[in-house]
Amino acid sequence: MSTTTDTTAATDTTAAAANWARFKKHFLHDATLGLSLDISRMPIPDDFLAKMEPAAQRAFADMAALEKGALANPDEKRMVGHYWLRNAALAPTPELRAAIETTLAAIKDFAAKVHTGAITAPGGASFTRLLVIGIGGSALGPQLVHHALGQPGADKMTVHFFDNTDPDGIDYVLATLAGKLPETLVIVISKSGGTVETRNGQLEAAAAFRAAGLDYTQHFVAITAPGSRLDQTAAADRWLARFPMWDWVGGRTSELSAVGLLPAALQGIDIQAMLDGAAAMDAVTRRPVTAQNPAALLALMWRHATNGRGEKDMVILPYKDRLLLFSRYLQQLIMESLGKELDLQGNPVHQGIAVYGNKGSTDQHAYVQQLREGVNNFFVTFIEVLKDRTPNGTAPENADNTAPGSADIPVRANADNTASGNTSNTAPGNTSNTASGNADMPVRANAPIANTPIEVEPGVTTGDYLQGFYLGTRDALSEKGRPSITLTVPEVSPRTLGQLIALYERATGLYASLVGINAYHQPGVEAGKKAAGGVIALKQKLAAALAAAPGHAFTAEALAAQTGGPPEHAFKILEHLAANGAVKKNAAANGNIFEATYSA
Amino acid sequence: MSTTTDTTAATDTTAAAANWARFKKHFLHDATLGLSLDISRMPIPDDFLAKMEPAAQRAFADMAALEKGALANPDEKRMVGHYWLRNAALAPTPELRAAIETTLAAIKDFAAKVHTGAITAPGGASFTRLLVIGIGGSALGPQLVHHALGQPGADKMTVHFFDNTDPDGIDYVLATLAGKLPETLVIVISKSGGTVETRNGQLEAAAAFRAAGLDYTQHFVAITAPGSRLDQTAAADRWLARFPMWDWVGGRTSELSAVGLLPAALQGIDIQAMLDGAAAMDAVTRRPVTAQNPAALLALMWRHATNGRGEKDMVILPYKDRLLLFSRYLQQLIMESLGKELDLQGNPVHQGIAVYGNKGSTDQHAYVQQLREGVNNFFVTFIEVLKDRTPNGTAPENADNTAPGSADIPVRANADNTASGNTSNTAPGNTSNTASGNADMPVRANAPIANTPIEVEPGVTTGDYLQGFYLGTRDALSEKGRPSITLTVPEVSPRTLGQLIALYERATGLYASLVGINAYHQPGVEAGKKAAGGVIALKQKLAAALAAAPGHAFTAEALAAQTGGPPEHAFKILEHLAANGAVKKNAAANGNIFEATYSA
Repeated sequence: MSTTTDTTAATDTTAAAANWARFKKHFLHDATLGLSLDISRMPIPDDFLAKMEPAAQRAFADMAALEKGALANPDEKRMVGHYWLRNAALAPTPELRAAIETTLAAIKDFAAKVHTGAITAPGGASFTRLLVIGIGGSALGPQLVHHALGQPGADKMTVHFFDNTDPDGIDYVLATLAGKLPETLVIVISKSGGTVETRNGQLEAAAAFRAAGLDYTQHFVAITAPGSRLDQTAAADRWLARFPMWDWVGGRTSELSAVGLLPAALQGIDIQAMLDGAAAMDAVTRRPVTAQNPAALLALMWRHATNGRGEKDMVILPYKDRLLLFSRYLQQLIMESLGKELDLQGNPVHQGIAVYGNKGSTDQHAYVQQLREGVNNFFVTFIEVLKDRTPNGTAPENADNTAPGSADIPVRANADNTASGNTSNTAPGNTSNTASGNADMPVRANAPIANTPIEVEPGVTTGDYLQGFYLGTRDALSEKGRPSITLTVPEVSPRTLGQLIALYERATGLYASLVGINAYHQPGVEAGKKAAGGVIALKQKLAAALAAAPGHAFTAEALAAQTGGPPEHAFKILEHLAANGAVKKNAAANGNIFEATYSA
Repeated sequence: MSTTTDTTAATDTTAAAANWARFKKHFLHDATLGLSLDISRMPIPDDFLAKMEPAAQRAFADMAALEKGALANPDEKRMVGHYWLRNAALAPTPELRAAIETTLAAIKDFAAKVHTGAITAPGGASFTRLLVIGIGGSALGPQLVHHALGQPGADKMTVHFFDNTDPDGIDYVLATLAGKLPETLVIVISKSGGTVETRNGQLEAAAAFRAAGLDYTQHFVAITAPGSRLDQTAAADRWLARFPMWDWVGGRTSELSAVGLLPAALQGIDIQAMLDGAAAMDAVTRRPVTAQNPAALLALMWRHATNGRGEKDMVILPYKDRLLLFSRYLQQLIMESLGKELDLQGNPVHQGIAVYGNKGSTDQHAYVQQLREGVNNFFVTFIEVLKDRTPNGTAPENADNTAPGSADIPVRANADNTASGNTSNTAPGNTSNTASGNADMPVRANAPIANTPIEVEPGVTTGDYLQGFYLGTRDALSEKGRPSITLTVPEVSPRTLGQLIALYERATGLYASLVGINAYHQPGVEAGKKAAGGVIALKQKLAAALAAAPGHAFTAEALAAQTGGPPEHAFKILEHLAANGAVKKNAAANGNIFEATYSA
């Protein structure tokens, strides 16, 4: 064992020297990526990596098969090809390669046309707002990228999300768009085309457009599987554009498909740099050399920390505000991939790793107290960002979507925006709108205010303190035997975010191989959806029963008996309907809530 | 045992009947609050509550002593009096009562004057933007309330936060305020007045105001302990106003002190309703009758689920977008309170409960897969909100701060805004600004667009689906033996949010008594801060060493030896400085990052 991170038993100097020796031994810096991985504060025995090497090699082989097009999701009989999205040459057939390349070109083209005004809203108004409607894998990635790479005041469009079926949440977002619907572009994202929450958001948004006297079809864009219900609707109603999703891209690994790329491109983010970053990380992490492979090392650290059985939670602590949503993104990627009842042989294993986190040093003032002193049920992943701030006015990679990598995509006046063929992508009467038409939009008129480094103490900046708190917390946890990993990236940019996404995608896949589970299905989510359908059906029966007996009032129990529904559900549905004025509730004289009656 | 939630062994009907019987038995509805607590899906044995009753009574007694002014935080020799904030008559001395009442009146008065234009920015511009600078307990509560109770387009001020010492995060927020600093009010919140992150944010904000040619002192307000460093600065520089924080209010229980109330009042939230809601919850949960006390029942469920040793994580799943940040708020409240190394007798116990969560049904598409099938290391708390949406244009309790409860606070032209005496609370030249001066502000001009219920299927609304997914997920988890609690509130309003805050404050305090720990100190957070100070000191030594040897380049190891700092820290500091152009880095010819050299 060389777990030298406990300084209590040694002098500070000896401990510091031991930490330094261990750090140098367990610090992987990949110069091509600019990314570093430090596993020196993980208490792995000296022989851990050697012992795990055969398993690591099997995991590399599994991933290689996957990347060649093996059926990795046997439940759904589909391939898993998110790696092809950033290197289409790897796709197993020329048709898939062409679909990827055509779609990417169409995304860049569509975004460029929206930005230049070649595509506008009916009447010629520029699209200045973007409303993304999606949930889960169709929201978490776009939300992460939107926040991480946004340039307030310089983004090409301001972005909003419907990511739930909460009517009040929908109203909240619509209120922020008040008066702006005429210049709002809407993207509806559902791979299957049948996601109820997304369908509901789409219908609510369409109703809002109609209420504003607008033809929503000329504002709506679909991202969905060709031929899905959503695709059929969008085609029949001649929506502005359609972009394809493929069955070989899972929702939780779809950020670098049209799902994530179209919103990002419209916001003005350099999506080619995101793809290039992911491709570069794929190239590094595809190498079957464990010691030089940050994804493999990450997966092995997870294996060590959790004993391969989810015994510890993964706490994600990025020291950068822009990465606030990364833990939420990883919750889906990791927990939905790894949280499985059965292993590949069908044995019950109840696998998974719980993931949570926000950002440092904010969390220093929240739960670091427990991390240091309390229940020892976690390991931390710090994410360190070396660059403190972007100098005034240079807001770099994002600023120009026509930078190298997209310059060769021609801006066609009436291009076909989808792989499946959509001819209605330009709105009527759309000839007078140009890029200069955007200059009067208040959201873009203002440059950033002040971001010249200031000293908060002589010779010390705000960013020095951010690093100080990260290193301080790392040491404070180590002293108490709480393990941590550190990932260091030079900056938060399209390229490094693409890297991080690809890194965690592959680490998750490798870990699944290490513990012998399928990372690419989600059999556990159907039960809840099915049960929800039963609740909706019961709601309709209850409403019908009450409507059929005007002037009569019934207890929840009586209505349950009449409709054949579970009394508990009947009670809760009736309480919900009463709170929303859809049924009348009559309290019982004795105050017993279960004796209340309900009437139409 | 009456754990009848597993339906696999019985027919659906039998299971439904058993669930219903258990539900009725374990469903607490408090009519005065309008809140319900359902613990029927927790697999407690029939005799659990009886067995725990003596411990529950001891916990009630502990809380009673606390509320009377016992020294509950022996480390810091202070009382714990957040309960007095919402019922000042309970404060142990007339002086404390007067301080609470005076401060509350001053908060309402200040907010009213900002809203009416009696207090303006220099030159007479109305304050339309609010920047809150705080971290931990001085940010998490205000952020929760801001989002949960916001009325986009109808809020009296738009609110922004600096909650970290990330310079890029600060620039990001400043960019959203571009051009608006002349009408931005800034609140700097630090109880101790010495929180470094907050001090850094304050200095960055002041620099931005200066860069815009503005006198920041006429925009800044302090909330801090009278006599603190921040208080002295604010007094010396004649800031616009100062409001007191007291040592008997902990950061994580400070939402209903000036910390939370001033930002909320300025946003236009009915703070008296928040206080009244909390007071009503306090009254209910103060009763030493376990079966009728939702805080006691919550604490006992935590005790059962975690075995009193943090063995399960607490997953918070509100089915309401407005409650998205509640889990983050609870992370601090619960983990900082309960995550303790030592019990009250000084024995090492490593207590705590890990808390995480976001919102449903979004999480259905993220980690419910793991919750249902994966590692069984959690219990869920669902939060159900009965009311779906607010009818168009009635945006209720928030709309008017001069509603009952605050109508009797006179709006004085030159009132003393702080309990500690501040005479500079109105800006110079501030006579011509009136409420009608706000009418031209775009942020307030737009009413919400459309929130009339629409049907997404015949007879079915978006809100029906939200409830359906909640009930479906609850059943899907129960089927697999995953326990859950449900809290049901009629709506998300100032009153119910006050209730929820008070409920969890008391449940946390009661739980601490149940497991014999002190909930009111945080000894574990000092180590990280101290270590951060060491990093800052080393940074200065390294910079000095390089400056003293112009033209010379050194390895990190050599500079560490020269400065006496830990080599690992020296290396990381130098990499950070190099990334920000503060030192020059020279890569080693062999590519070994540890042989790189650094020069001034």
